[in-house]
Amino acid sequence: MSAAGCVGVATPRSFESKEPFRFVSGEELPGLAIAYETYGELSAAKDNAILICHALSGSQHAAGLAPGQEGQEVKQRDKGWWDLLIGPGKAIDTSRFFVVCSNNIGGCHGSTGPKTVNPATGRPYGSGFPEVRVEDWVEAQLLLAAHLGIARFHAVVGGSIGGMQALSWAIRHPAMVARAAIIAGTPKLTTQNIAFNEIARQSIKSDPAFSQGDYYGQEQGPRSGLAIARMLGHVTYLSGGDLERRFSRRRREDGDTFEIESYLRYNGDKFADYFDANTYLIMTEALDEFNPAAEAGGDLAAALRPAAARFLVASFRKDWRFPPQRSRELVKALLQADKRVSYAELGADGGHDAFLQDDPAYHEVVRSFLGAAEE
Amino acid sequence: MSAAGCVGVATPRSFESKEPFRFVSGEELPGLAIAYETYGELSAAKDNAILICHALSGSQHAAGLAPGQEGQEVKQRDKGWWDLLIGPGKAIDTSRFFVVCSNNIGGCHGSTGPKTVNPATGRPYGSGFPEVRVEDWVEAQLLLAAHLGIARFHAVVGGSIGGMQALSWAIRHPAMVARAAIIAGTPKLTTQNIAFNEIARQSIKSDPAFSQGDYYGQEQGPRSGLAIARMLGHVTYLSGGDLERRFSRRRREDGDTFEIESYLRYNGDKFADYFDANTYLIMTEALDEFNPAAEAGGDLAAALRPAAARFLVASFRKDWRFPPQRSRELVKALLQADKRVSYAELGADGGHDAFLQDDPAYHEVVRSFLGAAEE
Repeated sequence: MSAAGCVGVATPRSFESKEPFRFVSGEELPGLAIAYETYGELSAAKDNAILICHALSGSQHAAGLAPGQEGQEVKQRDKGWWDLLIGPGKAIDTSRFFVVCSNNIGGCHGSTGPKTVNPATGRPYGSGFPEVRVEDWVEAQLLLAAHLGIARFHAVVGGSIGGMQALSWAIRHPAMVARAAIIAGTPKLTTQNIAFNEIARQSIKSDPAFSQGDYYGQEQGPRSGLAIARMLGHVTYLSGGDLERRFSRRRREDGDTFEIESYLRYNGDKFADYFDANTYLIMTEALDEFNPAAEAGGDLAAALRPAAARFLVASFRKDWRFPPQRSRELVKALLQADKRVSYAELGADGGHDAFLQDDPAYHEVVRSFLGAAEE
Repeated sequence: MSAAGCVGVATPRSFESKEPFRFVSGEELPGLAIAYETYGELSAAKDNAILICHALSGSQHAAGLAPGQEGQEVKQRDKGWWDLLIGPGKAIDTSRFFVVCSNNIGGCHGSTGPKTVNPATGRPYGSGFPEVRVEDWVEAQLLLAAHLGIARFHAVVGGSIGGMQALSWAIRHPAMVARAAIIAGTPKLTTQNIAFNEIARQSIKSDPAFSQGDYYGQEQGPRSGLAIARMLGHVTYLSGGDLERRFSRRRREDGDTFEIESYLRYNGDKFADYFDANTYLIMTEALDEFNPAAEAGGDLAAALRPAAARFLVASFRKDWRFPPQRSRELVKALLQADKRVSYAELGADGGHDAFLQDDPAYHEVVRSFLGAAEE
């Protein structure tokens, strides 16, 4: 194994599609901007591309440093969100692969989203942004693939909602996906999942500063509602054991506040600094609605039949948001549909967020699934 | 078994203690009002009394109908919160026992609490209400016991936070507690428990209508913050399977909204109609702080040593808020401390809220633990 390295400073890129974009909902936008980053080199044959799909709070900045961080001491958590997995010699090896990650549309990191100015009104889309489905993300990424001259991905890879995108890619564009890795994913949300998402949404929508989604001209948006939503997400992405080990019942120096309390407040606040509340609503609604089996009368195996990819499904034992049971349902349906599938149930203790974390067994599973570029 | 019946219309009672009441925190109130209800008859020997301790959103109205409901068709959910267990012929049999339930101090159903007018200022206590601990509830209930002439309870019984009170009673007043039933309880909260409580508190506190706790003169208090807190509590009190069975991914007639979404919103709203946000804060803080082992250097068995009661510890398999593991820790410590303890791990599917629900096996466990009045 080569020594694992960092991709260095990532160059922010953007692609502008001037074609009207039609959403699953039937709504249309006159065009799309797609913010993205790439790491590694596209081979002459253009056969070594890996598409990375991001999850709820992610962005196109999946690996390396952001401009401005060069020459600084940068903590791991301040690097790209999947930097632990993406880089030269890492599980997703940029010395072999050309790795692409784009900001989902409806996002808030440069792709067309609710804070984008609507050319028809001169004001941000806000509440008027179309409803977004996972399939819309896939179709926007398809435009980017065409722009980059990629006719077929060596792999489409994602965790959580990113895994939903990888699954959707494999179903919708079988000829373009050689491998699909669905990590900490689920073929559809449970009632409990939807319930947590709804509480997060209510928390945003009931913040008076939300102004029905049209808050961009205000001094401040629904910061506190968004912070609560994030705190709730955060707690449910961690396992109980993980929280116990990291915080237990320890107090802050004031002797009064529990450390977990100040940790949650700090993280909620930080999130509200950089994330957009409308994007949070859009993402959670897309999550709730994802259900590829629905198009096949509820038969997931039938929905998967068109796929031609080799599949990796990986789950984490302590993930109670999308637990192994959900991944096993997917594996079962893939086998029923006669697909080639590897399944890994990983022991990492980090809850749902384990898909973002450092775990040698997990990284090795991803590395070996991706194989060599020429395979 | 006699046919189970209803206690009928409960008479709201109140007891006023004129003695200064000193809280664990050292703060003092000049006196206390304690709202309570009783069901059944106190025996001449005054040896058949059972004290019921309520949980977070409970009140003194544990059984039967409220005044005004007489002669009406009253749904089970609109009766007292533990009406399924308390009544003639029921698990807590009012034809044998004299059952007492009081509203916890700091509450919002008639006992002295944050919405009570502070005689010193002429305004509600609001943010100035003392910090409340589980032990304060016990000491207030002790005053009520004295008022009722009860020197020893046949049993002290509670679920969830109510179980914490029963445990605290057994430790603090061993001579007064013949039996203690701790149902769906825990000897202390986990980090995850505290985290959920903190999110609920932040949701209340960040509602602009909270006004730092002094909202009583306003047209409206922090309704939406309280509703979010309740939604979050509600989801965590149910098991995933319970939610799935009741709501699945079914939609409302509009075809858009999931049923679980409108259910949560409706329940959050309803809760905000009758509950007080400051009480919610007080209750969750008391929960977080409860940790009898702390007074014995972290040794729970040592903390339990003074108790003289026979114990019932009961947990529910699908309760992930206070799961069986927490009850087993308590049982283990009780055994280490040489106490008599029965433990029941019940299969009811209702999550933490199963302690409120109809389950014959559960009810039989409670009934048989309580035995006959003369035992």
